[in-house]
Amino acid sequence: MYRACIADDSEGGAVLGWKAGGHVLSVRQFDSASLKEIFAVSDRCFVPPSGPSRLAEGRLMAAIFYEPSTRTRLSFEAAMLRLGGGVISTENAAQMSSAAKGESLRDTMRIVAGYADLIVLRHHDQGSAQLAAEVADVPVLNAGDGPGEHPTQALLDAYTIQRWRGGLDGLHTVFMGDSLYGRTIHSLCLLLRLFPGQHYTFVAPPNAQPPRALLQELVAGGVRLTVTSDLVAAVRSADVLYVTRVQRERFADPSEYERAARCYRVGPEVLEALPPTGIILHPLPRVNELPEEVDTDPRAAYFQQARLGVPIRMALLGRALGVL
Amino acid sequence: MYRACIADDSEGGAVLGWKAGGHVLSVRQFDSASLKEIFAVSDRCFVPPSGPSRLAEGRLMAAIFYEPSTRTRLSFEAAMLRLGGGVISTENAAQMSSAAKGESLRDTMRIVAGYADLIVLRHHDQGSAQLAAEVADVPVLNAGDGPGEHPTQALLDAYTIQRWRGGLDGLHTVFMGDSLYGRTIHSLCLLLRLFPGQHYTFVAPPNAQPPRALLQELVAGGVRLTVTSDLVAAVRSADVLYVTRVQRERFADPSEYERAARCYRVGPEVLEALPPTGIILHPLPRVNELPEEVDTDPRAAYFQQARLGVPIRMALLGRALGVL
Amino acid sequence: MYRACIADDSEGGAVLGWKAGGHVLSVRQFDSASLKEIFAVSDRCFVPPSGPSRLAEGRLMAAIFYEPSTRTRLSFEAAMLRLGGGVISTENAAQMSSAAKGESLRDTMRIVAGYADLIVLRHHDQGSAQLAAEVADVPVLNAGDGPGEHPTQALLDAYTIQRWRGGLDGLHTVFMGDSLYGRTIHSLCLLLRLFPGQHYTFVAPPNAQPPRALLQELVAGGVRLTVTSDLVAAVRSADVLYVTRVQRERFADPSEYERAARCYRVGPEVLEALPPTGIILHPLPRVNELPEEVDTDPRAAYFQQARLGVPIRMALLGRALGVL
Repeated sequence: MYRACIADDSEGGAVLGWKAGGHVLSVRQFDSASLKEIFAVSDRCFVPPSGPSRLAEGRLMAAIFYEPSTRTRLSFEAAMLRLGGGVISTENAAQMSSAAKGESLRDTMRIVAGYADLIVLRHHDQGSAQLAAEVADVPVLNAGDGPGEHPTQALLDAYTIQRWRGGLDGLHTVFMGDSLYGRTIHSLCLLLRLFPGQHYTFVAPPNAQPPRALLQELVAGGVRLTVTSDLVAAVRSADVLYVTRVQRERFADPSEYERAARCYRVGPEVLEALPPTGIILHPLPRVNELPEEVDTDPRAAYFQQARLGVPIRMALLGRALGVL
Repeated sequence: MYRACIADDSEGGAVLGWKAGGHVLSVRQFDSASLKEIFAVSDRCFVPPSGPSRLAEGRLMAAIFYEPSTRTRLSFEAAMLRLGGGVISTENAAQMSSAAKGESLRDTMRIVAGYADLIVLRHHDQGSAQLAAEVADVPVLNAGDGPGEHPTQALLDAYTIQRWRGGLDGLHTVFMGDSLYGRTIHSLCLLLRLFPGQHYTFVAPPNAQPPRALLQELVAGGVRLTVTSDLVAAVRSADVLYVTRVQRERFADPSEYERAARCYRVGPEVLEALPPTGIILHPLPRVNELPEEVDTDPRAAYFQQARLGVPIRMALLGRALGVL
Repeated sequence: MYRACIADDSEGGAVLGWKAGGHVLSVRQFDSASLKEIFAVSDRCFVPPSGPSRLAEGRLMAAIFYEPSTRTRLSFEAAMLRLGGGVISTENAAQMSSAAKGESLRDTMRIVAGYADLIVLRHHDQGSAQLAAEVADVPVLNAGDGPGEHPTQALLDAYTIQRWRGGLDGLHTVFMGDSLYGRTIHSLCLLLRLFPGQHYTFVAPPNAQPPRALLQELVAGGVRLTVTSDLVAAVRSADVLYVTRVQRERFADPSEYERAARCYRVGPEVLEALPPTGIILHPLPRVNELPEEVDTDPRAAYFQQARLGVPIRMALLGRALGVL
């Protein structure tokens, strides 16, 4: 059932397509057609079934986490169980690896591929999901590879926008927070640009501006870009306000973190400026950038966003297993 | 399916009823009728079924433990699986929470409520289960909230007495051990007083006597109380000897702990004094207060007590899900 | 369903048979007939079923690990889930135990036996599985008891040879690596000697030679033995090359470990000497003794060996539960 779908890219990297039975390693695998297909399958998973699903009965998912990421793990496990499948799981995978780490991940993946029908991998090293996919003879789903990617997060972000707005064409998205290290911002940028008429505005702390390479890629892809420090002005025409926390662990210097973290906040003046049809997203967890007062705002979509991770992952698991 | 059933109490606290689809937060939710109903459902769960149960198939329980409590977690998980349901689980929930703890528990509960059909919560802070119930739109079952309550332990304690003695009216229960900090003693006291004719005797170390507020509440509820240091005399008329260990972590001063821990022990003279129809309970784990020699005594009910946690939790989960 | 099958031995130890519904504690429980029976059941489990199995539906396995052993745990859990059963699991079992360790294991086993239909136990103390079997009224499967045994590893090792070679009679097996502390070598030696015509060659570091008692027992059992330092010569007539890593934790003196670890390695000259029909096994994880270059050799059976742990454990679980 499994089919590798890795192809060489003239620019030196690997370009991946996405097919039933294939890996989910990077947002770069997807085009707008495959995204729409995933969303359509997710829609079917979102509707509570009349009875329990047994689509994946007898199939096993291995959740191999080299670092704890409880939300992501529970969301993947819930998705597999909702399909009627089984789960084997560890957050102690680092204890499976010996001194020669790279070697050991390869061996571990080969062994686990003998236990389960697909592997969900969380690892602290960029490229680990790609490495796993090269040696495992079952589909690998990347649940975050350190500073690399966390593609299912980006997919659920895009899916949330799709469900709230009915489509992804012609959006103005304001990305608030760390645009330098913010993995979720980068990934969502890459997904949304697959749809025509995108406008992105980055409102980031001075020491966490979006990387030049990303901006160049987006411009080349036809995205209209704005970089500003005026959050209130930016959200006046926003369809989506994508809020992120500044991650302490990304800054070597604590004072740099403090500077970045205190920069922006979704206060009353931001809520007032945001159009009634705008929606507020956040990958969670939040710190101070998104006060609890916002939770009752009808445009606050972030708890729904977290929930939509389950149908998205059901769709991805079901397609990888060939049962959806 | 979920129905909140919190009502204001004139005394300022929250009084909770118990209904199918509701939370299980406190022993104070229950009256004698609801207890009898739970026990009747538990009786049905206790009988091994002729085939596997699929009552809860397609439903998910999330076990969210902010501190390890392996026995409790395994017992809840066994109960859910015995009903045919699925389980997602963590003992690392503390790693899900950020600096602002209270805020984060609220967010975590809202997120997990989007993954699962009910939440079993263990948390070190008193009131956390109540907090969770306020924000989650699925039933919350309190699996221990620090110095607060652990209501399913008290329910299984009472259920064990019910099964061994055939009823809960007119009992003389001797509570041996730490009556000051002993959460299980307090909770069982509150449950049994729902039945007429209760007599409680506390045999506690001098520095771990029952709190005055509890005694006052019990007297007001019509319970006959004895406080004594003479264990042998106390058990002569006992129907139930409820033994508890003195918990080291509750005493700031190690010498206070030592004083309390060495006070009482179920020795041969205690066994001789206890009537043949009396039963010995212990919430386990035990230390020295209950020697292994007692295990072969026909009145030793504590391993059966541990087992009865499964049907009690099946009943509570099944009622919370509306499938029992 | 459970039947204890422990019988006294005139030499003072316990001799165990193996029957449906019984414990799996030691390789010494098995004779050639019971091994063949287990392998036949495993063969049936190895074939992917046309649909999901529900043989063990409604039954629960408790995986109680006092130390993490993620591979072993995941393999057992996969086996139980592939049978359609449920799993409750902990790698934190040490936190369930109180100060008096031996006592607590007994209590824990009695309690867990009330939750599940069988127990898979991993514990750091030799004899712990035996102790558990004495108090639990459900079957206990030993998943490693410290310096004691890990019988299911030896069973899957033998099963791999059986599947690759079609039988276990008349084999020449070369054991490379630590033959002093190497638990897997000792156990496989004891299993294979149940079949006629065995020849074992030990190629071990000078400070990790096989213990005299083992050699005496093997000789008494009719096994032909060779002890040599010439790996290349040894493998020329080998049917099986069983490679093991030298375990750092077994050597008190780090320099002793270094001496042992660097002694032998499966290099090109070894591969050239090994007959085309010979197979290379390794219980994994590996360090430097087995380079990755060997992985593509058609005689490299070690990843298949890891996979075969699942059908072997399915067979053992299924027989213990009486469903296979």
